[in-house]
Amino acid sequence: MASTQASGHFAEKYRQNFLDLFPLLVEELTKEGQDSHQILDALKHLKEVLQYNVPHGKLNRGLMVIGSLCHLLGLELMTPELENKAIALGWCIEWLQAFFLVADDIMDQSLTRRGQPCWYKKTGIGLVAINDSFLIEGTLYLILKNHFKSEPYYINIMELFHEITYQTEMGQCLDLITSPAGDSVDLNSFTIERYNAIVKYKTAFYSFYLPVALAMHMAGISDERSHTAAKNILLVMGEFFQIQDDYLDCYGDPKVTGKVGTDIEESKCSWLIVQALKRANADQRKTLEECYGKNDPSCVKIVKEVYTDLKLEEVYREYEEESYKKLMDTIKEELVGTKLPSGMFHEFAERIYKRKK
Amino acid sequence: MASTQASGHFAEKYRQNFLDLFPLLVEELTKEGQDSHQILDALKHLKEVLQYNVPHGKLNRGLMVIGSLCHLLGLELMTPELENKAIALGWCIEWLQAFFLVADDIMDQSLTRRGQPCWYKKTGIGLVAINDSFLIEGTLYLILKNHFKSEPYYINIMELFHEITYQTEMGQCLDLITSPAGDSVDLNSFTIERYNAIVKYKTAFYSFYLPVALAMHMAGISDERSHTAAKNILLVMGEFFQIQDDYLDCYGDPKVTGKVGTDIEESKCSWLIVQALKRANADQRKTLEECYGKNDPSCVKIVKEVYTDLKLEEVYREYEEESYKKLMDTIKEELVGTKLPSGMFHEFAERIYKRKK
Repeated sequence: MASTQASGHFAEKYRQNFLDLFPLLVEELTKEGQDSHQILDALKHLKEVLQYNVPHGKLNRGLMVIGSLCHLLGLELMTPELENKAIALGWCIEWLQAFFLVADDIMDQSLTRRGQPCWYKKTGIGLVAINDSFLIEGTLYLILKNHFKSEPYYINIMELFHEITYQTEMGQCLDLITSPAGDSVDLNSFTIERYNAIVKYKTAFYSFYLPVALAMHMAGISDERSHTAAKNILLVMGEFFQIQDDYLDCYGDPKVTGKVGTDIEESKCSWLIVQALKRANADQRKTLEECYGKNDPSCVKIVKEVYTDLKLEEVYREYEEESYKKLMDTIKEELVGTKLPSGMFHEFAERIYKRKK
Repeated sequence: MASTQASGHFAEKYRQNFLDLFPLLVEELTKEGQDSHQILDALKHLKEVLQYNVPHGKLNRGLMVIGSLCHLLGLELMTPELENKAIALGWCIEWLQAFFLVADDIMDQSLTRRGQPCWYKKTGIGLVAINDSFLIEGTLYLILKNHFKSEPYYINIMELFHEITYQTEMGQCLDLITSPAGDSVDLNSFTIERYNAIVKYKTAFYSFYLPVALAMHMAGISDERSHTAAKNILLVMGEFFQIQDDYLDCYGDPKVTGKVGTDIEESKCSWLIVQALKRANADQRKTLEECYGKNDPSCVKIVKEVYTDLKLEEVYREYEEESYKKLMDTIKEELVGTKLPSGMFHEFAERIYKRKK
């Protein structure tokens, strides 16, 4: 899954406040209460689970809530209480993501995550990590109840988390069906329709729509029209973001991105292989079928040569330009008759389209 | 986890209506909608997940909702609409249980469940079952939204499912910490306090309190006092039920219970081993440490001989009688000043205390 850079410059000035809230949330969830002496060992375990898995990402999704709220209300209406609430909701997104990632790593049999061993790989953890992922999700709703029960938008954000969680799970399901673990890949399933559906459900809803939608509910914007508009814009952004991520996996500078791509070895349903399959002649297709998904540098090299022959870098540049135009058009069209500020979406767009990592 | 027989005779007459609603709920969740053509394969997979994992239990927990509602409202106030809603909520409990069981089976590396292979053991499933368990939980909240959004108690039942889910996860966490998979057991951790905490959190909340609490919300009884009273009574019942289950695992008649117990081989933190450890002299404790948790019939036999020497059947009979008295006292005390009918709790009690399977 890609990491978003779309938190906006408003968000950056809140990074320290954001970081400062995390230990308070953990304390609130794991402190000894009247009835909890019976489950102290479980609370101790939960604390470790949260500290290991929730806070070590780039936090861009989480920061995007307060970044959006600044746009929606205007800085002059921000109060310490609103800031605190937007930051708590931002953490809820990081919580949701941690729930997914802990489980995804088990399903993908990954080894490391965010520069440390995957949680299930730690000594004494193993498959207990499945229940730990449940606990991360479970505590998210405790945070909502503790901080938002008296807010008029409490039920809206609870339903929103349910909806987005389900959509993300459906996206993961589609991804797992399309690229079954251990099996040799069937490249026939790598269509652009399938690619777009996986990106939309597995990544775009929770990474792009969710943070903005939460800020909208906080700002009192809960009508369907506005939410549909925001969703349509942010899903276009999410699609571009993932395609760019797939592009950078192969063509990004590891010195800049900080990671060496492995999508080809891992047989990922990447935008590049989808485009290659669409353009390949019979020989090239045969080569891709033989070499894609093999953990062997010479195979990776052969796949990349096919990509070069098919001019995929150029195809990407064209897509990038078209996608940017489409996004600008979508923003213009969708915002007509809503109270949503176009500046918010433009800021996110600028940050994404210029990124190199 | 034990299966409850506490659904009550009111519930039994609804068994066929209960069964009839399942395919309708599945259809509602998996039918093609306006946006769903992109995820048709995932919906098809989801349908299989639900049909394989949700409906094959004894359904006693699910039926307990409508059984309780009949007591709370009186049969004369039941309408087809209320029946349908109580049955849908009953299915939500079966949904919740399926979510836990699919994941528990992976964590415990179990082979069969309800007379069929565990879901993760099916060809082509494996660890995908983790995400499938998430989807079962995710669709539960879709059922709530589809059927209860306009009810005044919608938010109450949503919060109740969050709370009980979290408590059950904490119970599972405590159980996994107490009996780590693959490790040789440390019998020192098998204390009665730990045993009671695991039973309460992992089983009693969702099996006993949840169905009655849902019916109470439907009947408009949502005050804290009444819920605390019901919870205190039903947790006593849940504790006895699990202890009885542990007793029957060793001393029940397989011809009656329909299963051969394996708690000793599987090193379960059973009530019997907890009682044995409390009463054992140094020699007996040494024997238990050597033989408990070994998958070897002669070791099982030796453990059972220690149980016999310690007169555990007699210990159980005494506990059973005391527990029944305690339950009757609790019902009497807790119901003072509430509108809850004592007949409901007495009916559940009679069904549990006389069971042989």
